[in-house]
Amino acid sequence: MNVDGIKVVDATLRDGGLVNDFYFDDEFVKALYKANIEAGVDYMEFGYRASKRQFDPAAFGKWKFTSDTDILNAIGKKDSRMKISIMVDVGRTDFQEDIGPRKDSPVDLFRVATYIETIPEAVEMINYISSMGYETTCNLMAITKCTDEQVAKAIYAIAQTPALAMYIVDSYGAMYPKQTRKLTRLYHNILAPVGKEVGIHAHNNQQCAFANTLEAKDLGARWLDGTAFGMGRGAGNCHSEALLGYLNGKKYHVEPILKLVEEWMLPMKNAGTEWGYNTSYMLTGLTNQHPRTAIAATKKKDYQFTEQFKVLSYQ
Amino acid sequence: MNVDGIKVVDATLRDGGLVNDFYFDDEFVKALYKANIEAGVDYMEFGYRASKRQFDPAAFGKWKFTSDTDILNAIGKKDSRMKISIMVDVGRTDFQEDIGPRKDSPVDLFRVATYIETIPEAVEMINYISSMGYETTCNLMAITKCTDEQVAKAIYAIAQTPALAMYIVDSYGAMYPKQTRKLTRLYHNILAPVGKEVGIHAHNNQQCAFANTLEAKDLGARWLDGTAFGMGRGAGNCHSEALLGYLNGKKYHVEPILKLVEEWMLPMKNAGTEWGYNTSYMLTGLTNQHPRTAIAATKKKDYQFTEQFKVLSYQ
Repeated sequence: MNVDGIKVVDATLRDGGLVNDFYFDDEFVKALYKANIEAGVDYMEFGYRASKRQFDPAAFGKWKFTSDTDILNAIGKKDSRMKISIMVDVGRTDFQEDIGPRKDSPVDLFRVATYIETIPEAVEMINYISSMGYETTCNLMAITKCTDEQVAKAIYAIAQTPALAMYIVDSYGAMYPKQTRKLTRLYHNILAPVGKEVGIHAHNNQQCAFANTLEAKDLGARWLDGTAFGMGRGAGNCHSEALLGYLNGKKYHVEPILKLVEEWMLPMKNAGTEWGYNTSYMLTGLTNQHPRTAIAATKKKDYQFTEQFKVLSYQ
Repeated sequence: MNVDGIKVVDATLRDGGLVNDFYFDDEFVKALYKANIEAGVDYMEFGYRASKRQFDPAAFGKWKFTSDTDILNAIGKKDSRMKISIMVDVGRTDFQEDIGPRKDSPVDLFRVATYIETIPEAVEMINYISSMGYETTCNLMAITKCTDEQVAKAIYAIAQTPALAMYIVDSYGAMYPKQTRKLTRLYHNILAPVGKEVGIHAHNNQQCAFANTLEAKDLGARWLDGTAFGMGRGAGNCHSEALLGYLNGKKYHVEPILKLVEEWMLPMKNAGTEWGYNTSYMLTGLTNQHPRTAIAATKKKDYQFTEQFKVLSYQ
């Protein structure tokens, strides 16, 4: 398995945080950090750095507002084998106040998440954060709601920034392998000539997250997101253990994540934290919708799938 | 969505029977039959016709030995909108005794399942069963254990029979989309010139069953297997509701299967019948092994995935 240039990004704390309001034990964060290092993971994402003016810190765990100190408190000394990332949403972060120079921070990478409408703001954030010395990527969310023309325009805009990569983010889990290939080609054709790379962040609504990640990889995507046991919003993500199992070899190792699944993820899920494929999520993926109605249905144990499909079909 | 020539085959009673020893209520069989017809499913498979000399009829439900009478008792009058299929395993059926002329039977299609070593016997069975007036297909199991040369030789052998189609059967759930495309091309290139078609029967060990089915379809496979709620051995199969959701339109309709999932499949699973993706199945798929060790681990709630991977890696 040729893994040249691949960057596996563990997004468990970040996308997984969306299902437990970012309340993770420090012990878990330590175990995840250690497992990722041993597995050869390239970046671990320590949640979001959200605005404390917009979101009440009393209503969420600390990993929604991750400070440099939070990271260092959790991991002790930073291990040089793995980089650290944070996600920032356009419009939901006070980046000019809350992001200081990289030389004072354990963070290496800020991933700037944006919808298609806010690409100009994303460009501004990328430029600012890059000027502070950090690596950046642009993560274009809800991509299945965009036209190819919109996407191409957005890629051209990001191509002019210092961002290292631009991500295909299938927020709704609506993508099939064929679409993944098409989008990866579109991204790659514009980004490769300017020395930038393609990333993929998949959701598992239609059980295509892992397959889509492999397809993107085969067409040149180098930034591959996974979460332990697929922990993430709604149907969750590409399972890190599946991805690392596939890549398993000299650089990547699946065993540490399997151990993490045994010791932490399965118990967390069995204790009632809810994520992963079900029929309601399949239907929001199929109809290319935000998973919010499926999350609500799952929460109240509503299994009236025909009715759910009917409602989704008219939206 | 162009669905010309597509044949959706519901294999719930057959592959699902492997997880409940073929004990299905007649009420369920009726509901499944009705749902499949309403969904536009082309064939419904009523289990196996296994040898009663080799298998004790007292130890299994009737759908392991399905007789014409069993079918007619369950469905009443046959509906002309959907054909009926039965699977027969090479070496495990008394086909010359137990398969009479088609004109006396509600069965339309016999699918002959074989491993690569028994292709000559499969050819013999296909010729015999065809001579009785039935449609036939050849289902080549455990395909990921075969070399391309073996597979090509097998396809050439089947190409000379009256079989309508030959199936890629990913018994171990070891296939990725890329492999699916390669195998579909190999099959198609040999079969299309002689007027035969390609089929796919996927397993979900690595959550690629649906993705692989779509990939095969896009490269020309016309026979697509699904099972309601993915019910099937180990990690189960391509979910019929995902496949029919994808194909949903003038010919195919997902709602009847969603209703079946609500009313029958979810209750059946919640009552303890065990199937579907888990980490143990992922590992047997990853290592291209029969799922038996994962089935055993799942049964005894053994979650020592690192140990399981270690054992599988040395097999």
